[in-house]
Amino acid sequence: MARVVQKFGGSSVADADSIKRVAKRIATTRQAGHEVVVVISAMGDTTDELMDLALEVSPQPAPRELDMLLTSGERMSAALLAMAIGDQGLTARSFTGSQAGVITTGTHGNARIIDITPGRIVSALESGDVVIVAGFQGVSQDTKDITTIGRGGSDTTAVALAASLGADYCEIYTDVDGVFTADPRIAPNARRIPKISYEEMLEMAACGAKILHLRCVEYARREHVPVHVRSSFTTQEGTWVTDLEEGTEMEQAIISGIAQDTNEAKITIVGVPDRVGEAARIFEAISSIEVNIDMIVQNVSAVSTGRTDISFTLPKTDGKAAIDTLNALKESVGFEDLLYDDQIGKVSVVGVGMRSHPGVTAKFFASLADAEVNIEMISTSEIRISVVVDQDDVNRAVRAAHTAFGLDTEGEAVVYAGTGR
Amino acid sequence: MARVVQKFGGSSVADADSIKRVAKRIATTRQAGHEVVVVISAMGDTTDELMDLALEVSPQPAPRELDMLLTSGERMSAALLAMAIGDQGLTARSFTGSQAGVITTGTHGNARIIDITPGRIVSALESGDVVIVAGFQGVSQDTKDITTIGRGGSDTTAVALAASLGADYCEIYTDVDGVFTADPRIAPNARRIPKISYEEMLEMAACGAKILHLRCVEYARREHVPVHVRSSFTTQEGTWVTDLEEGTEMEQAIISGIAQDTNEAKITIVGVPDRVGEAARIFEAISSIEVNIDMIVQNVSAVSTGRTDISFTLPKTDGKAAIDTLNALKESVGFEDLLYDDQIGKVSVVGVGMRSHPGVTAKFFASLADAEVNIEMISTSEIRISVVVDQDDVNRAVRAAHTAFGLDTEGEAVVYAGTGR
Repeated sequence: MARVVQKFGGSSVADADSIKRVAKRIATTRQAGHEVVVVISAMGDTTDELMDLALEVSPQPAPRELDMLLTSGERMSAALLAMAIGDQGLTARSFTGSQAGVITTGTHGNARIIDITPGRIVSALESGDVVIVAGFQGVSQDTKDITTIGRGGSDTTAVALAASLGADYCEIYTDVDGVFTADPRIAPNARRIPKISYEEMLEMAACGAKILHLRCVEYARREHVPVHVRSSFTTQEGTWVTDLEEGTEMEQAIISGIAQDTNEAKITIVGVPDRVGEAARIFEAISSIEVNIDMIVQNVSAVSTGRTDISFTLPKTDGKAAIDTLNALKESVGFEDLLYDDQIGKVSVVGVGMRSHPGVTAKFFASLADAEVNIEMISTSEIRISVVVDQDDVNRAVRAAHTAFGLDTEGEAVVYAGTGR
Repeated sequence: MARVVQKFGGSSVADADSIKRVAKRIATTRQAGHEVVVVISAMGDTTDELMDLALEVSPQPAPRELDMLLTSGERMSAALLAMAIGDQGLTARSFTGSQAGVITTGTHGNARIIDITPGRIVSALESGDVVIVAGFQGVSQDTKDITTIGRGGSDTTAVALAASLGADYCEIYTDVDGVFTADPRIAPNARRIPKISYEEMLEMAACGAKILHLRCVEYARREHVPVHVRSSFTTQEGTWVTDLEEGTEMEQAIISGIAQDTNEAKITIVGVPDRVGEAARIFEAISSIEVNIDMIVQNVSAVSTGRTDISFTLPKTDGKAAIDTLNALKESVGFEDLLYDDQIGKVSVVGVGMRSHPGVTAKFFASLADAEVNIEMISTSEIRISVVVDQDDVNRAVRAAHTAFGLDTEGEAVVYAGTGR
């Protein structure tokens, strides 16, 4: 008998019929003898609809009140799901994030989970109940106000609950069959990855893969919670995200997966005087407007001019704010020009195997050259290589790398030396 | 500067525009320097829609979960209203019933308020906030589960809050201008009552007047909270429900108002043997199925037969259950027949003045006779006379009494010896 936390997203409880279908699935797990805690999102587009309603009432809704409003969505789906499970001959009880003991910071709209005190949940589990927890929400440690946990909130809640309950694993149910070696809409040969390490999943998420949120994966890694990302439409195995098994690095496939991101723009500050502190001033200014910078590239200054170019990437949505901030610095820093390019894309190959296999960079760059993709910027970590390319070349680059690293067909790539999970 | 509790119903916050309109009204009160607590119902038909959704998911929704679901409605309107008031240049904060300290029994769907511990509300008021409280809900003292307070819940919450906060008065905003001397749709000459005592309002509510719920009036009477029932569409004075001023009984109008109720049915048990205990057995059986009996009439038994007839009225919706229960007793009690009539109506004249004025019963019955209305049953209290008549005669009876007691025109009835409120 296992203790399991399951998370279902809004599309899987979009209406009464879906709720009943999910209830049957949850009941099956409980009837197999497992203890089950379900974290649930709001039905369908409810959160967006509530947001629209708020904007109809107030152009800038007060954050505390917005959280009070938005959390109604998860409350409703949790209650309805509990009703439906009750009809399966089981007992089920729903809890708000607050009742479940999800304690957070006070930042409305983007609260961080500080701790979880799941006393009431444990009591309910011990009574034999299926427990339903409203996702995406908690209670502020300081003010006791209801908070929402920001993007990926329900996934993160599920993993955090799993950790605090000592659950055996956490299942994230979604629309797709698991994590794929590349986005199947771009690389038709992309395959489901049976097992991927936390580190690799972190890189995939940071580099554009949308299947799991960064915060959720980081939480799972820190607390060593095995996460099973799987489809809510089938009973097939999905992708297990877990610790890397000791000593298996040599047997890892070189590349586990490829991610792409077309939400970034590139800013190049041309002709920055090569004086101590100029780069620091530039990036202090950017960080003061709370823009998240991704890749930074600076070459050595040209001997002839004593100047250098600095390029960095950032979310497109922050582009204007960054340009405005930098323009204000032009006089004082004395750079020559400011270039803005939002027609870029980032392509990343991820794999723990690259730590033990030489030549990955060369192979990657060769595949891009063969596909006639020009590389504009390069950034690497121990287990990831990212390149910035023209936005129109992204898909071709993904497919080229997917083929080059043997991910196209089952036979060529040895994903794991051992058997699959 | 006063401390005021205001309650607004669902129709006054049916959409974004209504919410903004109510927000302006509330802001005006706050800006006049008063401390304001607002109890709010769910928007428009939200509660009904949530109920429909529950029934789509489960034919018999678990009561605990139904309360969790339904309370989302008030949560949403409270948050939206707080946002809108915030846009008026004030600070406003919304609270759930639980956060507001509304402690109740554990009966889901019909919880009773045990106590209110409004600590957080008082702090918010002292900070200068307008406080918005989600109506219709509280938290169970025993289980800490969210509960809904049953019919009239928001009105009762408002009055209970007013009592616990030591508020100067409680305003109940509604669709009509106040409490009327009779239902204006039946008696076109009906007028707004400027001031009515708690006792009279209790009788009016018990006898069919729908403007305020019985529980709410009882709470107000017990805690001596002045209640102002007024229209949310105008700024005119409505009806004040308060204690009767000492020593003013002689000056009271004989009749304050007339109520009618067409939701009852009459059951007559014919030929009950006149033995000790038979009536008791009959009414024990009825009460065991939790049917609320209203009027009971039993005449002395006929000397010749040693039997008597017993009639009583009850809600039409309980009719079948009562008939079935009584039929099961037919053998053991030995009555002769069971008659059921759901084409009845109850008409009641209410007024503290009748304690000090003789002849009220005679005047009432004379007016009914003149209108050719036959009286089937009679029931009285110190300040109320009720008659059961044929349902088709109800409206005529109401108008006849309204005229007979001088309520038709401003000039004839001296409502209060002093000036209006």
